Amino acid sequence: MSDILRRGRLSKSPGEEMRAYTSSMEADKWIFEADVFVDMAHTLMLQEQEIISEEDCSKILSGLLQIKEEGMDTLDFSYEDIHISLESRLIDLIGEEAGGRMHSGRSRNDEVATCIRFALRGELLSLLEDLMKLETTLTTLASDHINTLMPGFTHLQHAQPTTFAHHLAAHADAFERDIARIISAYERVNICPLGSAAFASTGFPINRYVTAERLGFSNPMTNSMDAVSSRDFLIECAAAFSNIMINLSRMAEELILWSSQEFNFVELDDTYASTSSIMPQKKNPDTAELMRGKSGTVVGSLAALMTICKGLPLSYNRDLQEATPHIIKSVNVTDASVRMMTGIMETLTIHEEVMKTQSVAGFTTATELADTMVRDAGIPFRTAHQIVGTLSRMTTTPSLKEIDQVSSDVLGYKLSEKGLTKEAVAGALDPLGNVERRLVVGGPAPIQMRDDLTDKKRRLAALQKEIWAMDLAVERALENLTEEVKTKI
Amino acid sequence: MSDILRRGRLSKSPGEEMRAYTSSMEADKWIFEADVFVDMAHTLMLQEQEIISEEDCSKILSGLLQIKEEGMDTLDFSYEDIHISLESRLIDLIGEEAGGRMHSGRSRNDEVATCIRFALRGELLSLLEDLMKLETTLTTLASDHINTLMPGFTHLQHAQPTTFAHHLAAHADAFERDIARIISAYERVNICPLGSAAFASTGFPINRYVTAERLGFSNPMTNSMDAVSSRDFLIECAAAFSNIMINLSRMAEELILWSSQEFNFVELDDTYASTSSIMPQKKNPDTAELMRGKSGTVVGSLAALMTICKGLPLSYNRDLQEATPHIIKSVNVTDASVRMMTGIMETLTIHEEVMKTQSVAGFTTATELADTMVRDAGIPFRTAHQIVGTLSRMTTTPSLKEIDQVSSDVLGYKLSEKGLTKEAVAGALDPLGNVERRLVVGGPAPIQMRDDLTDKKRRLAALQKEIWAMDLAVERALENLTEEVKTKI
Amino acid sequence: MSDILRRGRLSKSPGEEMRAYTSSMEADKWIFEADVFVDMAHTLMLQEQEIISEEDCSKILSGLLQIKEEGMDTLDFSYEDIHISLESRLIDLIGEEAGGRMHSGRSRNDEVATCIRFALRGELLSLLEDLMKLETTLTTLASDHINTLMPGFTHLQHAQPTTFAHHLAAHADAFERDIARIISAYERVNICPLGSAAFASTGFPINRYVTAERLGFSNPMTNSMDAVSSRDFLIECAAAFSNIMINLSRMAEELILWSSQEFNFVELDDTYASTSSIMPQKKNPDTAELMRGKSGTVVGSLAALMTICKGLPLSYNRDLQEATPHIIKSVNVTDASVRMMTGIMETLTIHEEVMKTQSVAGFTTATELADTMVRDAGIPFRTAHQIVGTLSRMTTTPSLKEIDQVSSDVLGYKLSEKGLTKEAVAGALDPLGNVERRLVVGGPAPIQMRDDLTDKKRRLAALQKEIWAMDLAVERALENLTEEVKTKI
Amino acid sequence: MSDILRRGRLSKSPGEEMRAYTSSMEADKWIFEADVFVDMAHTLMLQEQEIISEEDCSKILSGLLQIKEEGMDTLDFSYEDIHISLESRLIDLIGEEAGGRMHSGRSRNDEVATCIRFALRGELLSLLEDLMKLETTLTTLASDHINTLMPGFTHLQHAQPTTFAHHLAAHADAFERDIARIISAYERVNICPLGSAAFASTGFPINRYVTAERLGFSNPMTNSMDAVSSRDFLIECAAAFSNIMINLSRMAEELILWSSQEFNFVELDDTYASTSSIMPQKKNPDTAELMRGKSGTVVGSLAALMTICKGLPLSYNRDLQEATPHIIKSVNVTDASVRMMTGIMETLTIHEEVMKTQSVAGFTTATELADTMVRDAGIPFRTAHQIVGTLSRMTTTPSLKEIDQVSSDVLGYKLSEKGLTKEAVAGALDPLGNVERRLVVGGPAPIQMRDDLTDKKRRLAALQKEIWAMDLAVERALENLTEEVKTKI
Repeated sequence: MSDILRRGRLSKSPGEEMRAYTSSMEADKWIFEADVFVDMAHTLMLQEQEIISEEDCSKILSGLLQIKEEGMDTLDFSYEDIHISLESRLIDLIGEEAGGRMHSGRSRNDEVATCIRFALRGELLSLLEDLMKLETTLTTLASDHINTLMPGFTHLQHAQPTTFAHHLAAHADAFERDIARIISAYERVNICPLGSAAFASTGFPINRYVTAERLGFSNPMTNSMDAVSSRDFLIECAAAFSNIMINLSRMAEELILWSSQEFNFVELDDTYASTSSIMPQKKNPDTAELMRGKSGTVVGSLAALMTICKGLPLSYNRDLQEATPHIIKSVNVTDASVRMMTGIMETLTIHEEVMKTQSVAGFTTATELADTMVRDAGIPFRTAHQIVGTLSRMTTTPSLKEIDQVSSDVLGYKLSEKGLTKEAVAGALDPLGNVERRLVVGGPAPIQMRDDLTDKKRRLAALQKEIWAMDLAVERALENLTEEVKTKI
Repeated sequence: MSDILRRGRLSKSPGEEMRAYTSSMEADKWIFEADVFVDMAHTLMLQEQEIISEEDCSKILSGLLQIKEEGMDTLDFSYEDIHISLESRLIDLIGEEAGGRMHSGRSRNDEVATCIRFALRGELLSLLEDLMKLETTLTTLASDHINTLMPGFTHLQHAQPTTFAHHLAAHADAFERDIARIISAYERVNICPLGSAAFASTGFPINRYVTAERLGFSNPMTNSMDAVSSRDFLIECAAAFSNIMINLSRMAEELILWSSQEFNFVELDDTYASTSSIMPQKKNPDTAELMRGKSGTVVGSLAALMTICKGLPLSYNRDLQEATPHIIKSVNVTDASVRMMTGIMETLTIHEEVMKTQSVAGFTTATELADTMVRDAGIPFRTAHQIVGTLSRMTTTPSLKEIDQVSSDVLGYKLSEKGLTKEAVAGALDPLGNVERRLVVGGPAPIQMRDDLTDKKRRLAALQKEIWAMDLAVERALENLTEEVKTKI
Repeated sequence: MSDILRRGRLSKSPGEEMRAYTSSMEADKWIFEADVFVDMAHTLMLQEQEIISEEDCSKILSGLLQIKEEGMDTLDFSYEDIHISLESRLIDLIGEEAGGRMHSGRSRNDEVATCIRFALRGELLSLLEDLMKLETTLTTLASDHINTLMPGFTHLQHAQPTTFAHHLAAHADAFERDIARIISAYERVNICPLGSAAFASTGFPINRYVTAERLGFSNPMTNSMDAVSSRDFLIECAAAFSNIMINLSRMAEELILWSSQEFNFVELDDTYASTSSIMPQKKNPDTAELMRGKSGTVVGSLAALMTICKGLPLSYNRDLQEATPHIIKSVNVTDASVRMMTGIMETLTIHEEVMKTQSVAGFTTATELADTMVRDAGIPFRTAHQIVGTLSRMTTTPSLKEIDQVSSDVLGYKLSEKGLTKEAVAGALDPLGNVERRLVVGGPAPIQMRDDLTDKKRRLAALQKEIWAMDLAVERALENLTEEVKTKI
Repeated sequence: MSDILRRGRLSKSPGEEMRAYTSSMEADKWIFEADVFVDMAHTLMLQEQEIISEEDCSKILSGLLQIKEEGMDTLDFSYEDIHISLESRLIDLIGEEAGGRMHSGRSRNDEVATCIRFALRGELLSLLEDLMKLETTLTTLASDHINTLMPGFTHLQHAQPTTFAHHLAAHADAFERDIARIISAYERVNICPLGSAAFASTGFPINRYVTAERLGFSNPMTNSMDAVSSRDFLIECAAAFSNIMINLSRMAEELILWSSQEFNFVELDDTYASTSSIMPQKKNPDTAELMRGKSGTVVGSLAALMTICKGLPLSYNRDLQEATPHIIKSVNVTDASVRMMTGIMETLTIHEEVMKTQSVAGFTTATELADTMVRDAGIPFRTAHQIVGTLSRMTTTPSLKEIDQVSSDVLGYKLSEKGLTKEAVAGALDPLGNVERRLVVGGPAPIQMRDDLTDKKRRLAALQKEIWAMDLAVERALENLTEEVKTKI
């Protein structure tokens, strides 16, 4: 048996089925680039600390550069994971005398944990960029629709008139929290386990600070046992992705509802729709439906991660290998969904007239009418609520006369006698007037909405700066590392 | 746009990203064979019902045979799914005049539901066979270890002596219930949606009974709207797989515990173990760990399926496409895990001496001692429990003298005066004697265990017959269908 | 310390917080009745097997009858569970000399497993009855609406006309599978662990068959270690409940959609609706919304159960105590939801005129028009699909002239020249005609629907008989047990 | 019908079953105090903004104070929720003329969202305090065990020697991340939806800033539709709780393992253990087992929350009511578990001698031996790994002679010829020497560990300050509010 890993300890090779069952090579494609960078940073440090010679260092780095260029596909997929396959390839290229020294002072346990954090960090940065684009799309669209009336819903019933801007901004604010959550999770992802070795660190005089810095991490992850055993950062990220997907599923649900014959508020661009294999007239909002469905996939990944980690004793257990594919799947689906939603919204046709017409259907102005009674006739809100509730069973556009009739029954007097006028009633029943009165912070009144959107854009600009800084820090570290490697060979 | 599906209704093509987001082609590999069979059965029926001509039927069947031989890989993966890609390939081969008639009287909605049920049925049959093999392995092993003493655990504490056979049979009985669940789910999987078309069935005079029969289904699935909208059978199956995986995770946990330095009850064969990249002395029970971890993957698939289906209105929604990969994943992982466990158990080294020695460690015979006091000295069990509990804080092998001291404190008299003898105490403290007294049905006494295993083998033989019959019914139907197709071209 | 359980072995009492953390007394209310029955059956058997005397048996049974009458509330809630609290109360009532003998030959491990199965069995029988009532309500309503036209949806788009009966029957068929799943699960619930003791059975010469029979179980659960360690039956049941809830959530979603201003297909009875605290005109379908939400609660219980059981070694572990509240919660929520849906459907106002009008909106007859072209003009379906797809971008009621124009573009000739007539086009565009042609089994044609409903009622009648038989078997066993107890005191 | 809510709009009362199904009164106990505070802050603001008179304000506040003193139990539980029950009680106390004005300018939708955030905020603060106590317990214990040798595990196999301090600090570092997550989530919890009314804010000139400030929130939650529709903060919190519970489940698993006869590393205090009802010698680590099980309960709550929120259109839907009990359950279980773990660790008996003995069992020093060969004989690590791997199949304490034999086979020369000495081999095989060499940051060397613990204590002190500041801000706001109320009546 020539397997560099098993040759010493184990006398039998695993069968094909066992290989397929235990190999992580498919998922390891995701960390191939990370693994090469990690190997480079580790090798440079080993030489600096005089654990390996300059000559061996130079050979190893050349070998790694060649492997990086050749790509993952040239590796031997019969190995159980990329780390051992890559090291084996290195030894093929430069011999065991030099290549066999790279793994000094570390283990696959810290190596894989470092690679996962490295790759996930990159995904988080992409996701943040894509979330920012979605935010821009939504706030731009909202800015264009500050005066577009539509019915606001509670319980999917027409409730009160609002604007399309107000509705869009609600979604945009939710995604802003999603951005904050990813930024917060990033802090707990971007720390470096390298040098923890199997879990007990090592007797070699390594320097964990310089490897962490070269790889763009903010810090070494302190306790070496914790560093190889923990996957709570995966659960945190998958939970943040689930929150994003659930927020997207809610928007998707609305797009599907609004595309229906009955609502007819919007129409998805042909690019994002499909037709039927049998019903030739159909135009289906498939992208939105799939997005709603894909929320289940991400939730499933989170459930898998939690079940995997539950009840595992320290330190590393092989169960943890099964966690990685779930984080890859969940981040990929989430990022693609965010981009897809951006595309859908950018190309959406909006039926403003339909929305406007519907904005008053169903007596949506009832609350304002009750409020008007409170303000103009001085009765308590709860009494006004009862009067309008009774009216709503008779009509959706009550006249002052009808109001007086009901108030006489309930209160013993007419509201017109207490100051309620025809004009006030008409004002209350007008949807635009309704919306314009909602001048409270966060409310749909166009003037207020404009202010709130301006504030939001300011916040987004600040977030963008923060994200760019995060991005740049990683990019520069890796550029520097690449340069350093080149000077050493 | 030459896309046979979109060309009429939609004016724009989807972009590359949208294709990747919405395509099901990867997952559809799983149903390629099913789809060809479904097309064949549908085409034969169309001709019998005189919806298409004999000549068109013959052309279509030839085209399908060619596609079957060429395999999935020759299909155009830029289509959104296999059904339309396959139909498109058919039209390429035999022209639209004939090929364009195959999709009469059906839709992709019933087609895909039929294909999923067809493919899943095959997986269930394989899984049943593999579960039966695991049962055989476990019961055979149990038969060999009817006299192998080991400590039985509750709360992971030594509780009472038992035998390895008794322990193995516990797991085997759990898997027997898993088999029953799969057989029960099979009834709700093996029914045929074909002919339900988009959801409203069709105006063509099709015959749903003959297609169902030709494809080996037990029946058409009655209501055509239900037939295309339901995925509860996926949830049921994924839940049954989860139960299997959780049962396996419990066995895996034990194998991991028992392989530890501290327990040292068993050793996995090298084939199923791995070593460390840094710690050369290590032999790790990786296969068992991965199996324990993979239970999370299957549980995650179930969570995904439930989240996807929740709150979907009838009938077909594109969300359902996202369900299929989860059932594929979950059945594949489950089946591989069952096979892996069979292999592990077949090659396991069992340290009988260690188990035997441990079977008495921790005063595991205390219950029998208390029971002996009840039987021989006539005191209530609860009182005996108190006396032995008190003794256990002093010693794990109490003498009659010590017993008398404690009983004097508790009861005011010595148990030796009430009939408890030295011999009875010695008998109670002997682990083999302990086990041999457990003659109750389901208990570990070797004589009883032998009977219970004989009963079990009888039950397994009956199950095997049932499974073979299920298998044969499907196999024959598909052979007949293949023959019929050949006679028609 | 006078605690009858801890007094021997443990020197310190648990603190208040520990008690609250570990006590199962709240959940144990659910098994109080079961526990008394189990104690009675066990006691009768102990006496028959001459393990206890007739006199002690009589005393114990009297004590148990008194405890049963007093009810759960008189028990001491400071004990960690009902079993020890009940035994302690018994000893208070009749003394330790007799009362201390009841627990001979068993343990809390088999006792609680038996109680859970006993109580869950009762819940399953109630749930089956309630599901049958829902089936009756749905099929009766369907029978009344065989001719009520409505639009059928795919992707929430109008697809083809169907009937309200067809739609209702789709849901009813899904619930029929739910019934089958519960009946199947029942077989694996209604088996008796009693006599397995801690896990190793017992040295007392007990008879597990007679206790199982007296308690109405179909059989003892064979392997005594499996009997106390397994909770796969809880996972199976919770998964079946989840399937029911997901099916209900889909109906609930439709009721919410259909109650909207935009759809306006139905109106929930005031009893099942609520209003707003601020918007007096609102009438909200709250019951349906809560039902949709409660599907999450049941899915959460299933997730909890699976996570709890994952990776537990045999035999009993205290983790299993945490499983019970989840099964109680999930079955209670499911049963209440089934009853609630029955009530909603029984009192639902259906706006037939709105449904009928909408049944043609959106060119739902397009498929039939394409099929008519295939049948009358002999062109392939895929070509007809293209022609109608093109037409649908121009109009929703194409004339023969328009059809000819498009067919000339696509095919080079007019379909009217190939046999397509004005009458045929008109027929295809009529929704009623459309539906009437769907005569295939499972289709919406009124004649077919009537047949399918008749078949369904026959199946339901057979199911009802089966359920009554299950019910009766349990009821009789418990009546007999109660009688037997009375004759012994 | 005198129901102040339904009397206007709905003509029928709900039945008893419907009430039970839809009422949130049980869960609302959790927000009773919050609701009174919210009512007070809202009322004060209404008066300041001159929406209600000083007199009405005074009456309402007096009523609220009385209700607060009477407590939740005096409310009428037949109402559907606490808000309407409390308002109804207020009207009973002070009449509708004043009491009916309190609900002006808000809705139950913003009210309940505010109350949930208020109550959850309090729970988070308690949880943070309890997590800090656990941290203190673990770091104090670790400080005492810097020199306590134990075997470190990977794959549950002995891997390398480490110290108990190192192991404890690994857990403590994980909980430190949990603290950071809760603090981060707190930012998104402690914002104020009040004034968003049903979703569209209100036409009354309310001031959302002053209510937010009076209630101790950091800010109003901007968009009013988002404010009432969002429950992503619950998902975020439940995910953070799940992470805590999974971390606890891992510690619990170890406590259970370590309490076993086989490991015997620790013994739980009697307070945290229990015995068996049948096996009098047993002492079971029940608290740890239940904790491991309760991780499932919290994971289940998260699954429930995600399933509930998936696919809900904006704005408020009644489904959201079903979310609240899950967050209550999950935070309560998590907090109790944290406290329980603190208690277990504070009273744990540690068998240092057993741990020390085991620290070398299984050739745990193999890695150091290989590293020594690398350092002293200059061979590559991968080659040393092979040599030690081969040795490990023969012995666990290899002599230099044995080493030379194997190295001759593998390399063709003896390592003793290259500088490996008997002393070096002996040093490598000594567990204490092993650990002392692991001087890398995060490693177990006692000197390093002391430094790392000092750093950790510094970080914890900073966190404690931050938490106290959060606590104080809320406390002061509520004290001020209470004072203000008193001056107004």
